[in-house]
Amino acid sequence: MIHLCLIGIGTGNPDHVTREGERRLNEADLILLPRKGDAKSDLVDLRRTLCDQLLTRDSPTKVVEFDLPQREEKEKSAEKGSEKATYLEVVEDWHDTIAARWGELIDQHLPQGGRVALMIWGDPSLYDSSLRIADRLERAGRKMKLEVVPGITSLQALTAAHRIPLNRLAEPVVITTGRRLRDHGWPQGADTLVVMLDSGGAFEVLNAEHYHIWWGAYLGMPHQHLIEGPLKEVGSDILRERARLREQHGWIMDTYLLRRQPRL
Amino acid sequence: MIHLCLIGIGTGNPDHVTREGERRLNEADLILLPRKGDAKSDLVDLRRTLCDQLLTRDSPTKVVEFDLPQREEKEKSAEKGSEKATYLEVVEDWHDTIAARWGELIDQHLPQGGRVALMIWGDPSLYDSSLRIADRLERAGRKMKLEVVPGITSLQALTAAHRIPLNRLAEPVVITTGRRLRDHGWPQGADTLVVMLDSGGAFEVLNAEHYHIWWGAYLGMPHQHLIEGPLKEVGSDILRERARLREQHGWIMDTYLLRRQPRL
Repeated sequence: MIHLCLIGIGTGNPDHVTREGERRLNEADLILLPRKGDAKSDLVDLRRTLCDQLLTRDSPTKVVEFDLPQREEKEKSAEKGSEKATYLEVVEDWHDTIAARWGELIDQHLPQGGRVALMIWGDPSLYDSSLRIADRLERAGRKMKLEVVPGITSLQALTAAHRIPLNRLAEPVVITTGRRLRDHGWPQGADTLVVMLDSGGAFEVLNAEHYHIWWGAYLGMPHQHLIEGPLKEVGSDILRERARLREQHGWIMDTYLLRRQPRL
Repeated sequence: MIHLCLIGIGTGNPDHVTREGERRLNEADLILLPRKGDAKSDLVDLRRTLCDQLLTRDSPTKVVEFDLPQREEKEKSAEKGSEKATYLEVVEDWHDTIAARWGELIDQHLPQGGRVALMIWGDPSLYDSSLRIADRLERAGRKMKLEVVPGITSLQALTAAHRIPLNRLAEPVVITTGRRLRDHGWPQGADTLVVMLDSGGAFEVLNAEHYHIWWGAYLGMPHQHLIEGPLKEVGSDILRERARLREQHGWIMDTYLLRRQPRL
């Protein structure tokens, strides 16, 4: 029997980890630590640092690093009309491959069963694939008990850094992706929109006159970077800074919140 | 100078507190701990327990309890047409009163300035008033530095307990209130909806055939209660259990996630 625990670790600040997360890491027999290629090596380093800081001397935990399979980029050459389906197919294939890799590592390091933990950036529920990958292991017939430890998301790290509420008083909030904003525009009826996974500047599809933006990159990290203001005034600053920071660090993760002004 | 720190403490499990939250509580000179009347005394008890568990022996922190001013319920007698405006007015007045109370307590206990912490249920950004109340203190001319420590929201506690993703792959999510769902129905274009602050059964406005629901009450607490299934099959169970649990404990806090089936 395998106990698989997906532990949300927050967005890069070791102090985002909860007491529960800390305990569960120490209870694990095995921590699987994915390497994502050179570009995001800071993120692997951060997980290593977390293990060094949080694992106590008498913890039985073995930390095993592995190379995360790369996602195929065949969607880039896809026909425009079938782009969405193809994107989902690519992602599904990729999740199958990762599930197989997790399975091999678990068999190799815990042949008698035991507790496996994965450190999940942010929270396992939000734009993260680990639950879907774990689901594949279960469907493949593996005897497994799955647990989830919630963590701080970049959405909360963003609002905390800017010291703003997520919602307007008693109003709803929409969370979406850069891809979705680009393809579908501002969601009908929404007043507040949080955009994640934007590869850069999806907000350019909007009429900048009507929005205020709170942007943050490397949230929670020492090099956290924040920009806030009317989209009309700061939109181009954000694009320029984003490009500069990405060049400087070799990678970037950023999130932003947009509010319609005046309110609907 | 007052340093005011709003600390998200998660939803009732002391282990939801982050390392940063724990540190900030111990750095505070003063923790203000609101009492909300008898009904929710479990929640005051929980905050007391957190202080007992998390404050170290050599911490300088003074914990001061105070009675939270009650919100006037004049909206109940409001004309139907002006209900929204009146509701917002009532809330604005209430926030003014709480801000004044915070100010008095700070003046009384920290006349020379210092560090004040408030323990915020969930996260300070999400359907919580503390940021708006703190803003009133600043606008009233108080010399103040505000900081926010993010915490686990009931939304993350819900998805972790049910071990489900918040979003469908690459799809958006809408977060809303029970009041809003009741008044406006299912938001256009949404596939996944999280409902918070529902005083009970706002989902009854929906055609139950088309939705799956994941419901949770007292999330993170020992008496956590979960129900999941097609809304058509479990909707009435949820209403019955909610009433029973509320009767049993004297209060209830619950949240649910709805997904449209089949997807749009």
